[in-house]
Amino acid sequence: MYIEITSTANKIFKHIKSLGSKSYREKYNEFVIEGARLIKDALQSFAPVNTIVINDSFLGQRDNSEILELISKRDIKIYKLNDRMFKDISHTETPQGILGVVSTKLYSIREIINKTNLSFYIFCDGVQDPGNMGTIIRTADAAGADAVILSKGCVDVYNPKTVRATMGSLFHLPIIKIEDTVEALLYFKQMGLCVISGYLSNSVYHFDVDMKKGVVIVVGNEANGISDEVIKLSDYLVKIPIIGQAESLNAGIASGILMYEVVRQRMM
Amino acid sequence: MYIEITSTANKIFKHIKSLGSKSYREKYNEFVIEGARLIKDALQSFAPVNTIVINDSFLGQRDNSEILELISKRDIKIYKLNDRMFKDISHTETPQGILGVVSTKLYSIREIINKTNLSFYIFCDGVQDPGNMGTIIRTADAAGADAVILSKGCVDVYNPKTVRATMGSLFHLPIIKIEDTVEALLYFKQMGLCVISGYLSNSVYHFDVDMKKGVVIVVGNEANGISDEVIKLSDYLVKIPIIGQAESLNAGIASGILMYEVVRQRMM
Repeated sequence: MYIEITSTANKIFKHIKSLGSKSYREKYNEFVIEGARLIKDALQSFAPVNTIVINDSFLGQRDNSEILELISKRDIKIYKLNDRMFKDISHTETPQGILGVVSTKLYSIREIINKTNLSFYIFCDGVQDPGNMGTIIRTADAAGADAVILSKGCVDVYNPKTVRATMGSLFHLPIIKIEDTVEALLYFKQMGLCVISGYLSNSVYHFDVDMKKGVVIVVGNEANGISDEVIKLSDYLVKIPIIGQAESLNAGIASGILMYEVVRQRMM
Repeated sequence: MYIEITSTANKIFKHIKSLGSKSYREKYNEFVIEGARLIKDALQSFAPVNTIVINDSFLGQRDNSEILELISKRDIKIYKLNDRMFKDISHTETPQGILGVVSTKLYSIREIINKTNLSFYIFCDGVQDPGNMGTIIRTADAAGADAVILSKGCVDVYNPKTVRATMGSLFHLPIIKIEDTVEALLYFKQMGLCVISGYLSNSVYHFDVDMKKGVVIVVGNEANGISDEVIKLSDYLVKIPIIGQAESLNAGIASGILMYEVVRQRMM
């Protein structure tokens, strides 16, 4: 049922360990997910799970039969490590004893973005915090967004902290990395989408803008907000009102408020 | 201008180091804030800053004169440590070289909660994640809430991670710890406030409830939501609609969406 790896010189062990680095992930287009719940979610979402790694403790637990059965139905190699070696490739403090290696799905904007009236995209413009990025993807999923698009300056979405914060939503909607922000925004506009960007310096409130039509909601960088090219190409620069003394909102919170304004307007 | 501490056996050094533990913070009703920005915010908000500690590197930087002048205007003792000793009491990976010891302000519900029609309170019912808690306080400040009330089961609001995540909002509105959730909710209701709790299992959407009157927005625990006693005493159990495949929203995001629904309804 599984292949045992006993040496840290083993090629597969070394490969999975190296997936901790961004450049290595990008070279092999693979990333690591940890925990039974996330792996179950990936399998049920038909994500390309290539390899599963378990440790001795995991094998010893009774209630892991469901996930192991789910894995056995797919043609996925399972490797077993001792707990110490597993800890070495895990990125959590208390490893659950199961992780998976998944291929990144690469989409182009042109295959995803369409003219449907109700389309709803999230564009991250230089979002840098791994936790924020994960939460934004989770919220985009919850709000029913069609895809999340990432500018070149965004944090790597496949780093362990971001993957964990998405709570599985990473597998529920397409994530599209783009090279050129201006080209992407022009394409959105050409497709008839309305580009709405969060921007504290403006005076139009987010709830005063019509979000019932097809929209792209742009979320900016934590410290500097949206970039100049996004300011120029936005159809609306909207402000979430700050009533108290806080200088700004957390980027994840701000994006959640904007996304759920889209939901509210479309459901009311 | 400052008193130098050179020994780790020094009483003040040991006291500040011990403030890293929750029970010690509760015993002395003090906590630590780090960085020039947060200290400036605390001083400008007239928070009871008792002690300032700086290190050699901080003294060597030119642009720190503003904050040092601000401190000198108040009767606050300044201690200097060498960089190694400072690192020992700091909770950040790259310390800014300045921290402050602040007394916690203790409020009772009865001195804060009033009958004003437009009053707006946030009640955290067992919020456990330090980052979420900090973000909730920051968002409550931004949304113009009058106070944040914490049930007994909440994470300590004065732990370094929460303090950092509040981005200074900790000093902008009263934080009230309560002992008895039922007693507090009954008092809110007696004062004519409407208790609105986030609750995924209900079918009333948050935007369908009138939040223009005085409200208490209840945010539940990350894993289990709101407690049974809160369910029983809520005037409205509201659901934020989940359109996609995500199981739930992050607790911070959910609270942000509810708080800004209050803002939207009152501004529209």
